[in-house]
Amino acid sequence: MSGSTFGSLFRVTNFGESHGPAIGCVIDGCPPGLELSQADIQTDLDRRRPGTSRHVTQRNEPDAVEILSGVYEGRTTGTPIALLIRNTDQRSKDYGNILDTFRPGHADYTYWRKYGLRDPRGGGRSSARLTAPMVAAGAVARKWLKAMHGTTFVGWMSQLGDVEIPFEDEAQIPLNPFFAPSAGVVERLESYMDDLRRAGDSVGAKLQVEARGMPVGLGAPLFDKLDADIAYAMMGINAVKGVEIGDGFGVVAQRGSEHGDALTPEGFDSNHAGGVLGGLSTGQDLRVSIAIKPTSSIRVPKPSINRAGEPTSVETFGRHDPCVGIRATPIAEAMLALVVIDHVLMHRAQCMDVELPVAPIAGLRPGA
Amino acid sequence: MSGSTFGSLFRVTNFGESHGPAIGCVIDGCPPGLELSQADIQTDLDRRRPGTSRHVTQRNEPDAVEILSGVYEGRTTGTPIALLIRNTDQRSKDYGNILDTFRPGHADYTYWRKYGLRDPRGGGRSSARLTAPMVAAGAVARKWLKAMHGTTFVGWMSQLGDVEIPFEDEAQIPLNPFFAPSAGVVERLESYMDDLRRAGDSVGAKLQVEARGMPVGLGAPLFDKLDADIAYAMMGINAVKGVEIGDGFGVVAQRGSEHGDALTPEGFDSNHAGGVLGGLSTGQDLRVSIAIKPTSSIRVPKPSINRAGEPTSVETFGRHDPCVGIRATPIAEAMLALVVIDHVLMHRAQCMDVELPVAPIAGLRPGA
Amino acid sequence: MSGSTFGSLFRVTNFGESHGPAIGCVIDGCPPGLELSQADIQTDLDRRRPGTSRHVTQRNEPDAVEILSGVYEGRTTGTPIALLIRNTDQRSKDYGNILDTFRPGHADYTYWRKYGLRDPRGGGRSSARLTAPMVAAGAVARKWLKAMHGTTFVGWMSQLGDVEIPFEDEAQIPLNPFFAPSAGVVERLESYMDDLRRAGDSVGAKLQVEARGMPVGLGAPLFDKLDADIAYAMMGINAVKGVEIGDGFGVVAQRGSEHGDALTPEGFDSNHAGGVLGGLSTGQDLRVSIAIKPTSSIRVPKPSINRAGEPTSVETFGRHDPCVGIRATPIAEAMLALVVIDHVLMHRAQCMDVELPVAPIAGLRPGA
Amino acid sequence: MSGSTFGSLFRVTNFGESHGPAIGCVIDGCPPGLELSQADIQTDLDRRRPGTSRHVTQRNEPDAVEILSGVYEGRTTGTPIALLIRNTDQRSKDYGNILDTFRPGHADYTYWRKYGLRDPRGGGRSSARLTAPMVAAGAVARKWLKAMHGTTFVGWMSQLGDVEIPFEDEAQIPLNPFFAPSAGVVERLESYMDDLRRAGDSVGAKLQVEARGMPVGLGAPLFDKLDADIAYAMMGINAVKGVEIGDGFGVVAQRGSEHGDALTPEGFDSNHAGGVLGGLSTGQDLRVSIAIKPTSSIRVPKPSINRAGEPTSVETFGRHDPCVGIRATPIAEAMLALVVIDHVLMHRAQCMDVELPVAPIAGLRPGA
Repeated sequence: MSGSTFGSLFRVTNFGESHGPAIGCVIDGCPPGLELSQADIQTDLDRRRPGTSRHVTQRNEPDAVEILSGVYEGRTTGTPIALLIRNTDQRSKDYGNILDTFRPGHADYTYWRKYGLRDPRGGGRSSARLTAPMVAAGAVARKWLKAMHGTTFVGWMSQLGDVEIPFEDEAQIPLNPFFAPSAGVVERLESYMDDLRRAGDSVGAKLQVEARGMPVGLGAPLFDKLDADIAYAMMGINAVKGVEIGDGFGVVAQRGSEHGDALTPEGFDSNHAGGVLGGLSTGQDLRVSIAIKPTSSIRVPKPSINRAGEPTSVETFGRHDPCVGIRATPIAEAMLALVVIDHVLMHRAQCMDVELPVAPIAGLRPGA
Repeated sequence: MSGSTFGSLFRVTNFGESHGPAIGCVIDGCPPGLELSQADIQTDLDRRRPGTSRHVTQRNEPDAVEILSGVYEGRTTGTPIALLIRNTDQRSKDYGNILDTFRPGHADYTYWRKYGLRDPRGGGRSSARLTAPMVAAGAVARKWLKAMHGTTFVGWMSQLGDVEIPFEDEAQIPLNPFFAPSAGVVERLESYMDDLRRAGDSVGAKLQVEARGMPVGLGAPLFDKLDADIAYAMMGINAVKGVEIGDGFGVVAQRGSEHGDALTPEGFDSNHAGGVLGGLSTGQDLRVSIAIKPTSSIRVPKPSINRAGEPTSVETFGRHDPCVGIRATPIAEAMLALVVIDHVLMHRAQCMDVELPVAPIAGLRPGA
Repeated sequence: MSGSTFGSLFRVTNFGESHGPAIGCVIDGCPPGLELSQADIQTDLDRRRPGTSRHVTQRNEPDAVEILSGVYEGRTTGTPIALLIRNTDQRSKDYGNILDTFRPGHADYTYWRKYGLRDPRGGGRSSARLTAPMVAAGAVARKWLKAMHGTTFVGWMSQLGDVEIPFEDEAQIPLNPFFAPSAGVVERLESYMDDLRRAGDSVGAKLQVEARGMPVGLGAPLFDKLDADIAYAMMGINAVKGVEIGDGFGVVAQRGSEHGDALTPEGFDSNHAGGVLGGLSTGQDLRVSIAIKPTSSIRVPKPSINRAGEPTSVETFGRHDPCVGIRATPIAEAMLALVVIDHVLMHRAQCMDVELPVAPIAGLRPGA
Repeated sequence: MSGSTFGSLFRVTNFGESHGPAIGCVIDGCPPGLELSQADIQTDLDRRRPGTSRHVTQRNEPDAVEILSGVYEGRTTGTPIALLIRNTDQRSKDYGNILDTFRPGHADYTYWRKYGLRDPRGGGRSSARLTAPMVAAGAVARKWLKAMHGTTFVGWMSQLGDVEIPFEDEAQIPLNPFFAPSAGVVERLESYMDDLRRAGDSVGAKLQVEARGMPVGLGAPLFDKLDADIAYAMMGINAVKGVEIGDGFGVVAQRGSEHGDALTPEGFDSNHAGGVLGGLSTGQDLRVSIAIKPTSSIRVPKPSINRAGEPTSVETFGRHDPCVGIRATPIAEAMLALVVIDHVLMHRAQCMDVELPVAPIAGLRPGA
């Protein structure tokens, strides 16, 4: 509620600022007995790390994570897991001129109005750098979900600016800097980004993220619906302006006879619903899309005002991602995993005794 | 967390089923001293009431609300406000055949899998009837927000199936059964719905909802972002599959130079952001769009299975809305109001001492 | 947090005022499939009902409970259980003179200072009448705990004013109006109360409440300790001023060699700890004591002030309990049950997979 | 709820184990603009630090705190304040033999039963060392409360074993290692502790803690009562077995005519209530007593069992406090401050608009 804790039973409390001494999080509620090492977490952190290609910010952060608590002899103990990431490449001088000016599209004005003061170094708390601890927490959730339920998470970029990216081959996703599920499109994306960088401008993107091997019945009827919590998690990622479940805005022009996913003894016939009915998981894949706005830090000048209310102009130099969507795929996967693990724990609390008279119907596999 | 409470400081706990004795809610945390009568609440309830035109369900429910507590001599006392709405027109026989069968697009299968049993009468807890107490709670929130901050909420239908509805005249919204901001489109919507009803089918819709006269700085940096909470609230409304803030999915193909709203001494120059930057309100209008799927209860037969896992076919008779989007406008307004009041109270808790050196910049008015 | 919801996973939201139209509660998070009828709840309500002996208030309330939701065909559905109790014997005139005056020992002054206005009828929200819905919710918790874990709850009066009540025979508790575990003491308690009533005065009491058949390992290490939550629940009962677990204040003068309960292959050797070590249940009986202050509504005049700050004198007529401790036993049992069920659900969420290599050591029985 | 977060609006999330790399906490919800330095926090930490006299554990921990976030240019920013304390003097060998054995009075058995495994080094998460981050968080709360409301907190030891400590001179409290408000009693306490240490035994203690300069009206009517939250906070401190507000267990034998604090135009005439009526603060001093059990780690042998369920005997060597109550005074002050600040923020959220027609009556000063 005070804004820095995510989840109800698997609770992640995030702290830090872009250019402060450190960022990190405390995970409270992780079940005991899970094998966990720093390497498990580092792998996911490295996937969102800055400086890994010329298309992302050149800030050079190793993002090395230290486990401060909650693990004993290689296993979680059920007590809070504190994760610490020291900031090592803060260059505050890059941001000196923004202390007094409100950058358009940024949170400068709103933070100042809310708090009366703000940490201007690198965007302070509003920096996308604060997604790193969420990726770290998500790595813990993903390991547990895979071990206990076989649930996995995969995301990819489906559109960059006006370039639509076809879903051709999932195996390509980790092989290019865009998380694109297509080898053929990569060259075009690279030249698109190179043009953009030369122009000093930025662009938006669309991502798809899915959960596979989902337990059935996760969620709650009225609020705490699984899809409502997914929307909350996704809209909370920096720069996200839209969220869809299943067919999303495509449902507006659909007929009921077309939309409802038929059930057969072998499973659902289709997945327009995106894996959620009435706020509860169907066991099919969760299908989520998000829209990410163009980076607000651009070299193209924009009119603005300063703290005295006088007109000025802002152009932002420094090290920025020209498309924040590029590094957002591991973030969206992590947030989806955090939603799912929270609902798994909640479901156990209330419904672990439920026994059904017949075998459950399996959800369909990807592509259905 | 157990799924029936919305909000952190202005908390609404919802109860009831479509065909049980009653539905209602308990509002905890309403500030004391607000003038409040049953009439204040009834007005909003009547806007979403069934049976008001031939285009919505013919269930005949007066939805008369009784205030059970929390009001003394016409003013709120700061203690819980319990609101009770008796169900009067339940015809359980309409739904007799669905006890054993899972209706496609409905929550029958997921509830059964979660709980091992379910109340099949009229969809039980998954019925959209449960939005009535939320509209009632929203009416209390709206009255307080208008009195204290001058904040108001307005929603309308922007698309019905494949018919786009132009925003021509806000004054038309209450004058037609579709909440359409255009007089000229109504005839076309009516014939569209008549055709649909004859075909026994249903269709989706798109709504827009806005908050005007917003305080600045509501929200929180990382989670509990204002826009994340809006996404949660909207995706939690029955049948919603997509949520957008400001330009929404339109941002994917935008450039940063185009998207960022410039600041001038007179206010923001545009409102691509939809009134939220960095998770905090800018003072501009909140601009939210939602996609509503077609009603799942249709007369067109669909393949399904029964609880024994055997194939069958479902066609739903009874009294249904052929487009649940039609009555959803007051619901979306209410949910947006509940999000805003919660954030106002939260902001007071943490930031009521903040003093700014210069006069705040006013947000721009609608249309900006 | 807004003050009317108890519990985290088995959440009870309470509403109502002493002389309003109704009181009640909404239970959210009750597991599905529990057989539940109004009679199950009424039995416990009748144990705290007013008017059952000459030693308690003569207000004549049947406290008949109506289940509004959450139960279908005699079983809980996993959705919210709303319970309604209509107020039928409100005589507001009894309290007419206290609108403007602050009764010593009552919440009149603090409510007025907090909210700026208050419902003076029968103490409004501060009335002990609001414990009735908690007893009703406790009845649901007790039924589930007994069915699932064999856990039961029993309370008794151990002291009335300066009369200590020996623990002689548990079977006597339901056979006298004082919940005294001794037949021999009843006559003395009756004459003690008769004298008190004639004097127009009131007196305090001490109660003991225990849980038996406790699961092991309930609780959490740092906060949400089982004993901390018990202290919270007990201190939240009207008029309670002290709470002890196990030996309570007796530990101050104990040596460590005397206090620590030795473990043997057959179980613990003693129960100084009261069934909690490190915030987690040991499986032994929970042992809790509470101190209840004398009723503040007395006929003996006391100096006070009115809302204008002028001196006055207060003597309270009307129908009051001369010892609120008498009817508090079923309340304390209910609150303890609500704490335990919440921790059982929480424990399932985090730790249901834990498997231990050897058979657990059974807790010892009462008296150990 | 997962057990490591305290508070609702001023939320403190605690992490760490006695012998892990570090302990610490994250404070979320601290109002912006408060001047804060590491020195402000270190002062309070030093008051509970081990190794400061021969009567407490000889573990040599500097408990140096590092502020990782939430402070910019010497002021809080409204974002999370992360505090880190590295463990530097862990000697795990001291505790080697307890891995397989359950120490009587300790949490060894309950942790093992809950989690299936445990960190045995120094008690792991159950160590009183984890109160250090709470003292640190309390220091932040205290600074804000003093600056904004003039509220201060003071605690002292009122009994050590069977030695009652008279309240003679508050100025003596910081001048002796026992937090005793009497110079004359110190020599007796020292020889008492020396005897105890020689015997290899431990003893309990009773503390009193008070808040002065309290705002009026803090709390909530039914749950989240101020006194209930105090009881929760105090019972959550390691080794606490009893909590009293005001006259505490003394109320059992009181008459109503004696207990109720009379109001006069100058304020309350007495403070039997301990500063709380109906769960809300009266503006008088909060008066709280707690009972602390004797340290469970003693050299005197005790029977126990090992993880195989076989009988054994335990005697604990190593560095322990022979009376944990000695260092508990700053902890109790900190926890009381954390309760009060949370209620101040909550009160602002709901009631900041309340205006009263007459001047508030001031609470009385200590001793009243």
